[in-house]
Amino acid sequence: MDYMNGPGRNHLFVPGPVNIPEQVIRAMNRNNEDYRSSAIPALTKTLLQDVKKIFKTTSGTPFLIPTTGTGAWESALTNTLSPGDRIVSFLIGQFSLLWIDQQQRLNFNVDVVESEWGQGANLDILGSKMAADTAHSIKAVCIVHNETTTGVTNNLAMVRKLLDHYHHPALLLVDGVSSVCAIDFRMDEWGVDVALTGSQKALSLPTGIGIVCASPKALEASKTAKSVKVFFDWKDYLKFYKLGTYWPYTPSVQLLYGLRAALDLIFEEGLDNVIARHKRLATATRLAVKAWGLKNCSQKEEWFSDTVTAVIVPSTIDTTEIIKRAWKRYNLSLGLGLNKVAGKVFRIGHLGHLNELQLLGCLAGVEMVLKDVGYPVNLGSGVAAASSYLQSTTPMIPSRI
Amino acid sequence: MDYMNGPGRNHLFVPGPVNIPEQVIRAMNRNNEDYRSSAIPALTKTLLQDVKKIFKTTSGTPFLIPTTGTGAWESALTNTLSPGDRIVSFLIGQFSLLWIDQQQRLNFNVDVVESEWGQGANLDILGSKMAADTAHSIKAVCIVHNETTTGVTNNLAMVRKLLDHYHHPALLLVDGVSSVCAIDFRMDEWGVDVALTGSQKALSLPTGIGIVCASPKALEASKTAKSVKVFFDWKDYLKFYKLGTYWPYTPSVQLLYGLRAALDLIFEEGLDNVIARHKRLATATRLAVKAWGLKNCSQKEEWFSDTVTAVIVPSTIDTTEIIKRAWKRYNLSLGLGLNKVAGKVFRIGHLGHLNELQLLGCLAGVEMVLKDVGYPVNLGSGVAAASSYLQSTTPMIPSRI
Amino acid sequence: MDYMNGPGRNHLFVPGPVNIPEQVIRAMNRNNEDYRSSAIPALTKTLLQDVKKIFKTTSGTPFLIPTTGTGAWESALTNTLSPGDRIVSFLIGQFSLLWIDQQQRLNFNVDVVESEWGQGANLDILGSKMAADTAHSIKAVCIVHNETTTGVTNNLAMVRKLLDHYHHPALLLVDGVSSVCAIDFRMDEWGVDVALTGSQKALSLPTGIGIVCASPKALEASKTAKSVKVFFDWKDYLKFYKLGTYWPYTPSVQLLYGLRAALDLIFEEGLDNVIARHKRLATATRLAVKAWGLKNCSQKEEWFSDTVTAVIVPSTIDTTEIIKRAWKRYNLSLGLGLNKVAGKVFRIGHLGHLNELQLLGCLAGVEMVLKDVGYPVNLGSGVAAASSYLQSTTPMIPSRI
Amino acid sequence: MDYMNGPGRNHLFVPGPVNIPEQVIRAMNRNNEDYRSSAIPALTKTLLQDVKKIFKTTSGTPFLIPTTGTGAWESALTNTLSPGDRIVSFLIGQFSLLWIDQQQRLNFNVDVVESEWGQGANLDILGSKMAADTAHSIKAVCIVHNETTTGVTNNLAMVRKLLDHYHHPALLLVDGVSSVCAIDFRMDEWGVDVALTGSQKALSLPTGIGIVCASPKALEASKTAKSVKVFFDWKDYLKFYKLGTYWPYTPSVQLLYGLRAALDLIFEEGLDNVIARHKRLATATRLAVKAWGLKNCSQKEEWFSDTVTAVIVPSTIDTTEIIKRAWKRYNLSLGLGLNKVAGKVFRIGHLGHLNELQLLGCLAGVEMVLKDVGYPVNLGSGVAAASSYLQSTTPMIPSRI
Repeated sequence: MDYMNGPGRNHLFVPGPVNIPEQVIRAMNRNNEDYRSSAIPALTKTLLQDVKKIFKTTSGTPFLIPTTGTGAWESALTNTLSPGDRIVSFLIGQFSLLWIDQQQRLNFNVDVVESEWGQGANLDILGSKMAADTAHSIKAVCIVHNETTTGVTNNLAMVRKLLDHYHHPALLLVDGVSSVCAIDFRMDEWGVDVALTGSQKALSLPTGIGIVCASPKALEASKTAKSVKVFFDWKDYLKFYKLGTYWPYTPSVQLLYGLRAALDLIFEEGLDNVIARHKRLATATRLAVKAWGLKNCSQKEEWFSDTVTAVIVPSTIDTTEIIKRAWKRYNLSLGLGLNKVAGKVFRIGHLGHLNELQLLGCLAGVEMVLKDVGYPVNLGSGVAAASSYLQSTTPMIPSRI
Repeated sequence: MDYMNGPGRNHLFVPGPVNIPEQVIRAMNRNNEDYRSSAIPALTKTLLQDVKKIFKTTSGTPFLIPTTGTGAWESALTNTLSPGDRIVSFLIGQFSLLWIDQQQRLNFNVDVVESEWGQGANLDILGSKMAADTAHSIKAVCIVHNETTTGVTNNLAMVRKLLDHYHHPALLLVDGVSSVCAIDFRMDEWGVDVALTGSQKALSLPTGIGIVCASPKALEASKTAKSVKVFFDWKDYLKFYKLGTYWPYTPSVQLLYGLRAALDLIFEEGLDNVIARHKRLATATRLAVKAWGLKNCSQKEEWFSDTVTAVIVPSTIDTTEIIKRAWKRYNLSLGLGLNKVAGKVFRIGHLGHLNELQLLGCLAGVEMVLKDVGYPVNLGSGVAAASSYLQSTTPMIPSRI
Repeated sequence: MDYMNGPGRNHLFVPGPVNIPEQVIRAMNRNNEDYRSSAIPALTKTLLQDVKKIFKTTSGTPFLIPTTGTGAWESALTNTLSPGDRIVSFLIGQFSLLWIDQQQRLNFNVDVVESEWGQGANLDILGSKMAADTAHSIKAVCIVHNETTTGVTNNLAMVRKLLDHYHHPALLLVDGVSSVCAIDFRMDEWGVDVALTGSQKALSLPTGIGIVCASPKALEASKTAKSVKVFFDWKDYLKFYKLGTYWPYTPSVQLLYGLRAALDLIFEEGLDNVIARHKRLATATRLAVKAWGLKNCSQKEEWFSDTVTAVIVPSTIDTTEIIKRAWKRYNLSLGLGLNKVAGKVFRIGHLGHLNELQLLGCLAGVEMVLKDVGYPVNLGSGVAAASSYLQSTTPMIPSRI
Repeated sequence: MDYMNGPGRNHLFVPGPVNIPEQVIRAMNRNNEDYRSSAIPALTKTLLQDVKKIFKTTSGTPFLIPTTGTGAWESALTNTLSPGDRIVSFLIGQFSLLWIDQQQRLNFNVDVVESEWGQGANLDILGSKMAADTAHSIKAVCIVHNETTTGVTNNLAMVRKLLDHYHHPALLLVDGVSSVCAIDFRMDEWGVDVALTGSQKALSLPTGIGIVCASPKALEASKTAKSVKVFFDWKDYLKFYKLGTYWPYTPSVQLLYGLRAALDLIFEEGLDNVIARHKRLATATRLAVKAWGLKNCSQKEEWFSDTVTAVIVPSTIDTTEIIKRAWKRYNLSLGLGLNKVAGKVFRIGHLGHLNELQLLGCLAGVEMVLKDVGYPVNLGSGVAAASSYLQSTTPMIPSRI
């Protein structure tokens, strides 16, 4: 049963879920299996080893939880913190807002540090709070690495620097949902205590695995954290890790084989090449936006996201119309503006298994939609700007040279 | 990447995950999609309507949660109860034990009613408790419909009768993980307040959807329940139901299309025919067990499960060896004995998308494994008993007459 | 096992094989079946009925032969003609050349009517030959509807007009390999006696079915045609059609289910809408070629093909380099120049399951490749020309309005 | 679109097409590709090298023709022989009959050596003919290695011995359709000049590749053979082999990747282990047939086929009814009796990707069907006989030890 067929392929440029490589779709095309046989533990073992590489950690302990990003958040918080714990959390868009909402509903004492939407986390305030908190009442700093609403990437190295500067022992919990595997992420180097992502983002899988990685310090904290949880409890995983059977409850074997294929593709391309590709496609997108005479919602270059670009349109245009028309006329899926920027921005997701011509097809589509809704764009202008850049920077495909 | 290939097909007879129909594998063989387009809500709407039918409810409200059965349990409990609430819970095997463990870790006050493993829930004690609890301090009765460890099915109609007899307002929370879609389940008729199952059981999908269905009374209770939860919070779903977008966070579109295909197959066969088929295959299995001279772990016929048969072997044999050998020699996946019955029983799962000859192949395999491990079985004896019954009871396939 | 992976999706713009819709890939994702059961004949019956629609015939008899286009040619010739028969055949490019080669090797007496490559069939000469052949020694006229080498479409209505004008009884055998389902094809109206296509062209399936459709007159001719053939003999098919089992030898059930899905998609979109879409995408492509300052190999507008555009490049550039670079750098698959136009043209296939943004991505890629190889193209120019046209002509997707 | 769904899996025991391994289905689950890129030739090269191993030849030249077994026959004949050539051909069942029919329609002068159906090729007569033909007027000996109609395997080593004994230069053309990859086949050792098989048989792929392998002597003969052919002409292949592009016309890339996966599985298991598995399953089947009190259509043990068993039933029973009932009640696909043995035998195909429990499920099904149609079988008797043998002979799965 399919709904709303159109000719040709859907152009999927929401900032997740993203395009799944054919190799991964193939790997998942299978019957169920007994996850208590010797095959699934053997597979899981390789996954747990390899998934650490996408976080650039050797000391972390990964958990592959059958859940979404929201569940991964809950796992990070409830395993490391106790109700009433004071945490600092940055509000810079809809996803950081939702995480803060979760933090509050889980009964933490949240110091919300808000920025204007379009700006990054206010690290000056973090500095002040660190400086003031000589009693170390702040138990954790929670930050979204890449805010998908506005296309803003926060500077995690700087966060670490501040914590270190003040010798503050707060845990650093990072939402890497729309950054890991696409934007440089250095868990060990930056002293991230819990890092997390979701399978349907830059890993380019279906939704269904919340990937959470805990530092030794986070694991230590989990021993005393008093938040109530069962499904998300790391202890149950750790118990089964020791047994070598790995799973406290039933995983999706399809997703495990899919994750294996996805990691294989990433390592074949090279993680740093994957990251460079994201930067290249993002730069091209931003050049197109500029050529159209439109503004990036992300206010400064230091915050520009390499996985999603939120584009501000003139106030005479409702971006909801842009999204609808893109879908209904061109089979192009773009991201809506959310909450404070609803109707004001539309979003181009440029993450995951994607290449230059896919992006240029999308940009050509955006141009046509802009014209459809009355924005006076020069058709071809964005594509020209983007392809100029891409033509001079795209490397040869190594396997084909 | 595949591990541990063997010639021919794997014979999957664990009591979940179960065989996925080709039609469902096909339906899931697809790229990601924007779940905020108009297509996915249109699909979701049909799923929410139709999934109620497998619980036989018209008044229930279903939730398709991206989680496993363990998460579905947590959803049922945390949405309807508050910490400290007194609940009655039946311990009759490993899965009821795990649920009770969860109930305790979620800080409920659990009255555990234990039975010998192999027996059903002790409803006499439930009666006594109901009779005694004139103050209605018991907030919920929690029961596993079908205990997968021992192959025991509890009598839910009787539970309802007892609650009604004492006019007790306790919520009735039922784990239907290994029963729904295979063993008759009547949510409305039996006054079940929360019913739940998992996609990888009789629905014959991959793991990944915890399906929870709440009665109006349960929904009412959820308004005041104080258990802490965010990911599992029904309120977030209900908010998005109202908006018509349905999803508080990203679903697996693959599983949604798969669920559509699975439900279509079930309705094409007819839910009651599906249930009758499970009874037929289960009866055949039990006849084989008897022919082998072995005993059903389920002690009385009234408790015999139509989805799984736990078979007791002589104490000279370790069932771990049976499971290993079945897998290593015959590509047959059987269920281990768990906890108290570890080493003592092995389990044959006969649920989901399955037919007579698949079962007979399995039974032939069990016979060979029994002989392998030194049990003096007459090869062919179990198959003869089972096929005698099946030959006289199997209906023609309606689409082929 | 995959060879030569690159990031993102392959952009497949050779003039066949073409992109397969996900719905068709899914439909083919299946185990083998007994083709002698009642299911496959029931399926085949619907296919034989429906496949006639893509030829616009009601009186034709279709054959679904497990072969390629080359085999379909052989089927058309050997079933209707006898060795030594005189036929008129038009040479206008590599595929008509190959067909003529086949005709000669099958021992027909071929009057080759050659045109300069880039021109259509010389119908003036056909007229003369018809006029001269009052003895009706010409048994058949063989014509390629759409010559894929040069992007030239012949005027079949005019061919019929000429035959009728001279009351000539010659059979009209038409290669519709790269036209049927994409360019208007009217078997009955144009009096085509044998029409044929291949599954991997506009039908958007894998290679493997040669679809041949015979008029009553062709069927009549087949009764006396003396060409030696067994595998391609229509008689064997007709015998099994009568039996209702349909298949003289084993078909690919996967392709049959795939064909069902492909036809369903075409009828859902509407065959004439599919044809209009091809014209729209072809027009856009030609506008891009013009904007790049390049020439269409097809010399006159009346011959412009709506499924493939062969583009002539300056003699300083070797198109082999264009094709290699497109593949090695941009994951773009373009068609080589063949034989007389080898090195001189490259080809953009724009047929099958394809939409506007896919094409624009391709055109953006062609621009970059042209720049790569030293052609002074203005990046964005072709996309601008194409998208201008498409933005004003693309209809809304009916299922989404 | 699926026709005639039934619960559970289809049990496919026709002697082809056979069950496709999940690994192969996965490998084929893909979009089309440009077969003129560098990827497909690289893949093809490995296939041509490896496919020789299944014929046990190092000197042969393989052709992967987009056709069926019938086409492979035609390829073998028309490339090596000229019209009027005298050939000796053995008629022992429906498939040898069909091949002979083809030979006659292709205008060869066929000496038909008929045996009673159920017997092997009459090699005494071959001896006489060889002895008498001192003029070497016989150009080829054509023999079906395994006659699928009756379950008879001919002794190719003996054929070679006879040819050698009389120093007869006739080409030896062998139909290995239902033997190659399942029954020992030694092209080089037995001096087979053309060997052929089809992808949907023991290779366990979909229909679509006719695999033909020519000895140097056959290749030499092809230079002067005058039979008319184009599609099947080896010369076109050899020309493209030299170019390194391999394909004279479009192959199915899906089947090429599928063949890669199928060969990988066969080599992982070990070709001789695959052959031993077929012998084991065939022996078990024959023991079951005996236990049922029924007779093998193959009259002597030396001819017993390891890929298919044709079972003779009492004249009171119509085997058509057996086949129908198996399909309509048990989702079991068995082979019909054909031509002379129509109604008298039914056939159990036991070839391809298959294991012990699949076979035992089938045998249990056959027993039930036999009882359904009134044959007084002891249910379980065949399974007991077969599983007794299998329990003592089945090896452990190497990857799982």
